[in-house]
Amino acid sequence: MRRWNGWGDEAKSMALPENGTQFLADRIGTAEPLPDCILDDVIAQVPESRLPPNILVDTSAETRIRHARGQSLPDWLAMRSGDFGVFPDGVAFPETSEEVARLLDYAAMRNIYVIPYGGGTSVAGHINPPKTDKPVLTIDMSRMNRLLDLNEESLIARFGAGTAGPEVESQLRARGYTLGHFPQSFELSTLGGWVASRSSGQQSLRYGRIEQLFAGGRVETPEGSITLPTIPASSAGPDIREMILGSEGRMGIISEVDVRVTPVAEKERFLVVFFPSFKNAKDAARKLVQSRVQLSMLRVSNAIETETQLALAGHEGLIRLLETYLKTRGVSSGKCMLTLGITGSKTQYQSALKQVKELIKPFDGVNTGTQLGDKWAKKRFMMPYLREALWHKGYVVDTLETATDWDNVDNLLNKIEDNLRNALNGADERVHVFTHLSHFYGQGCSIYTTYVFRTAKSYEATLQWWQKMKHSTSRIIVENRGTISHQHGVGKDHAPYLPVEKGDLGIQAITSLCNTFDPEGLMNPGTLIENVATTRNTTVEALAKKQKKVQ
Amino acid sequence: MRRWNGWGDEAKSMALPENGTQFLADRIGTAEPLPDCILDDVIAQVPESRLPPNILVDTSAETRIRHARGQSLPDWLAMRSGDFGVFPDGVAFPETSEEVARLLDYAAMRNIYVIPYGGGTSVAGHINPPKTDKPVLTIDMSRMNRLLDLNEESLIARFGAGTAGPEVESQLRARGYTLGHFPQSFELSTLGGWVASRSSGQQSLRYGRIEQLFAGGRVETPEGSITLPTIPASSAGPDIREMILGSEGRMGIISEVDVRVTPVAEKERFLVVFFPSFKNAKDAARKLVQSRVQLSMLRVSNAIETETQLALAGHEGLIRLLETYLKTRGVSSGKCMLTLGITGSKTQYQSALKQVKELIKPFDGVNTGTQLGDKWAKKRFMMPYLREALWHKGYVVDTLETATDWDNVDNLLNKIEDNLRNALNGADERVHVFTHLSHFYGQGCSIYTTYVFRTAKSYEATLQWWQKMKHSTSRIIVENRGTISHQHGVGKDHAPYLPVEKGDLGIQAITSLCNTFDPEGLMNPGTLIENVATTRNTTVEALAKKQKKVQ
Repeated sequence: MRRWNGWGDEAKSMALPENGTQFLADRIGTAEPLPDCILDDVIAQVPESRLPPNILVDTSAETRIRHARGQSLPDWLAMRSGDFGVFPDGVAFPETSEEVARLLDYAAMRNIYVIPYGGGTSVAGHINPPKTDKPVLTIDMSRMNRLLDLNEESLIARFGAGTAGPEVESQLRARGYTLGHFPQSFELSTLGGWVASRSSGQQSLRYGRIEQLFAGGRVETPEGSITLPTIPASSAGPDIREMILGSEGRMGIISEVDVRVTPVAEKERFLVVFFPSFKNAKDAARKLVQSRVQLSMLRVSNAIETETQLALAGHEGLIRLLETYLKTRGVSSGKCMLTLGITGSKTQYQSALKQVKELIKPFDGVNTGTQLGDKWAKKRFMMPYLREALWHKGYVVDTLETATDWDNVDNLLNKIEDNLRNALNGADERVHVFTHLSHFYGQGCSIYTTYVFRTAKSYEATLQWWQKMKHSTSRIIVENRGTISHQHGVGKDHAPYLPVEKGDLGIQAITSLCNTFDPEGLMNPGTLIENVATTRNTTVEALAKKQKKVQ
Repeated sequence: MRRWNGWGDEAKSMALPENGTQFLADRIGTAEPLPDCILDDVIAQVPESRLPPNILVDTSAETRIRHARGQSLPDWLAMRSGDFGVFPDGVAFPETSEEVARLLDYAAMRNIYVIPYGGGTSVAGHINPPKTDKPVLTIDMSRMNRLLDLNEESLIARFGAGTAGPEVESQLRARGYTLGHFPQSFELSTLGGWVASRSSGQQSLRYGRIEQLFAGGRVETPEGSITLPTIPASSAGPDIREMILGSEGRMGIISEVDVRVTPVAEKERFLVVFFPSFKNAKDAARKLVQSRVQLSMLRVSNAIETETQLALAGHEGLIRLLETYLKTRGVSSGKCMLTLGITGSKTQYQSALKQVKELIKPFDGVNTGTQLGDKWAKKRFMMPYLREALWHKGYVVDTLETATDWDNVDNLLNKIEDNLRNALNGADERVHVFTHLSHFYGQGCSIYTTYVFRTAKSYEATLQWWQKMKHSTSRIIVENRGTISHQHGVGKDHAPYLPVEKGDLGIQAITSLCNTFDPEGLMNPGTLIENVATTRNTTVEALAKKQKKVQ
């Protein structure tokens, strides 16, 4: 059973090793957890649904609670405290594109806001219902979770948009293929959600971002159905796929997704290389990607992340041995870890490994082989469970991410870390901050920063601390050539910062697309763009048109 | 000096070898050329300019003639016959983004249509002025042709948007870099034109299409200037870059372009492999690209293209030797040529070559080494000159292109070829038709068909023949899962077929973007989308706003 107030499956958890707890206590002090609320107390708070009856809609309190929040830190605090604020008025679970269309017609006729819901893993407030006079219907796509077609000549697979990561991979692997899209949220997030929020997976270096994997499909909009044909590439004007990518439910509901798949590779391993400094590790990674070495993954942890990961990894004996060995090779304090994946045919694997060994040499990289890399691969989707473990010790953890060009990586990374590290100085509270670079491009990379702090005395105070950190750092990002999000999307939390990145005309352009597909402004309000001015067509003609569609 | 009525530089030409002429005579008969008009006669026809005076605008007749047409077959017939129909009323040559903006303000104030002009190489009518009551101003970007900035850490180069292919490469190569974008039109076409029409180069397999190379820049629109920041990748909503890509001058004028560049590779060679059949060649190429072998180029010529190329290549002795050798290897009639490029470090080159050799074996490929490939590379941008040579022999040549998924390649290719081959049966006239596949993707490839026919008795009749072939084949393409263009764009010639590909809602979405950036509908009318319904805001407020902008 999925946790109602946290991440993942209730049966799964990740223990914090004893030295990990000590590590945090040394850095930011010992902590006391805030008390968790229980489900029954929340159920008692859920107000009556305002939705007119519909056979496809579930209005039970528990279902509405389970679809009220995502996985952002404010969501987490709401779920733990029981202070949800707003619930959707009901949840529908369509099984076909036609049912999705029917639900949109129902919403249009009855003036209902609609929130598309994939895995509910948003960390930016995408699926949170707004406080509004209109009823809110959440459309949960999880029943559209099947492989519908696989073309083995063109390597195109069609899925229901609600198919979650493990269901995508298991259905493809049974036929010898993989999508290769592995975001941290893989266990729960869905194909439709990945497209809607422009997701990126851990092995994007080989398989590409979802932008490269998304080949076409079907979108149900309030103005009708869109079929996006699969075409390998085209110069026929602006690409409609690119309007749907990142549309975050504002333009319609993605109901079926065609993706580009790959035969499962002959060989795949993950290696860990240590460097004496962050500069060396970063420059080596840049060299690898700019030289087009065929890797499937690259990640560079800065010194504090390297230290933290080794402390929390939970295999002390191995780590001690490793550190002794690294010292003999001149790599000790300040060392940084580079994790890399090689995936391909045996010939490709050998060639890439040869190139890696050549290229890391001038940067004094010490290749420790696949032992730590294999451990990383095994636990690659378990990290969100660590939040649960830390919470029970009284620690709050959140992440922030962006991407920028190579010449700006140090500047932006340092500004982000410094700001977070000092954000709670006024409260005399320390914040433990560390960063890795991942998702490498010729032009730059993403910056992924984790910050850990103790809960404040109350939920409200904890949320205020977070807000201060989040807002000040978001401003730093967009004012310093970073994108407000490289992989988490905009949602409601990042929407205030989007105009700096897109410009006024850019925001107008996106708004005009929203208005084209959703002229009444019923789709996921407040997400992506704050206060979209809609045409809100309430003429007699418009009502007549709606009625005709429903009939 | 550039030819006023054909392709390229007057000093350059490409001779048709004797056996090439015989080859065509055998297939479609001997021919007589139509008489060419002379420049002075056209100058005499050019009407007075309707433009209000502007110091930045050249209204001389010859300049207007030289900007009236692109390189489509109708353009070619117009230039050869002297029957131009319409000329722009003047041409401006801005040198800065600010001058571009000033010209757009002038156009807005005086109600003038604006056509952005790069290299004038469109084969789909992008830059042809419409017949209209409003004056038409062409903005030629050729003076904005400099490398403005090169960031060697982030591998980003900034150019004026009017920089043509050779100017891009020479300025980059002087610093050790390449863009790697080599469309057939390379000699004349420009960066801004590539972006505006979603161009693809011969080595897109390594460097990507212009979509992947275009990192950001500056666009002047009637509503103001857009700055597209360079960010390696982002999940922050729909990508504004993707709206500008393929906008074909409808949304504004791209004035500066940031591109992703690459250090010049250690090694690059082009190889030619022969296969006993088209099926074998196609399947081998598919296998190579789906196996992610690091190639920079792939092209598969079908049997008739292979035969035609060998006949027109002009080195008879070598070809005879080659054919004798191929026969001993079981490759004779029906043979198909695969040209492939390998580009990279020495290690990458060796690994790719090894993989090629392994992968072509089961398809009975015979590798003939680099001799023919090097000849191809030397002449790679000379093909448009062949049109001139053929014209003088009385032959007309044109090409059609699309892209589709692998499972549909044979179907679409055969339908296109059959239609063209039989199109002039009614006139008892043969058409020589041949095809290559290029621009390979995991999912499919482009189909590039060339067709040669004799000129009819008159220019009018020749144009009618072409129209019949073009229109019937374009319908076949969009009704059979092809894109109306993989690399030439939409222009005016393909605009009628775009709605089949994009759908009504897709066309509405693109239209809404045009209206956002150009609410008065002054930018490149009739291109991309037929009859855009604009908001044509003529209220007092709108006029006041315009006046304010101009001051």
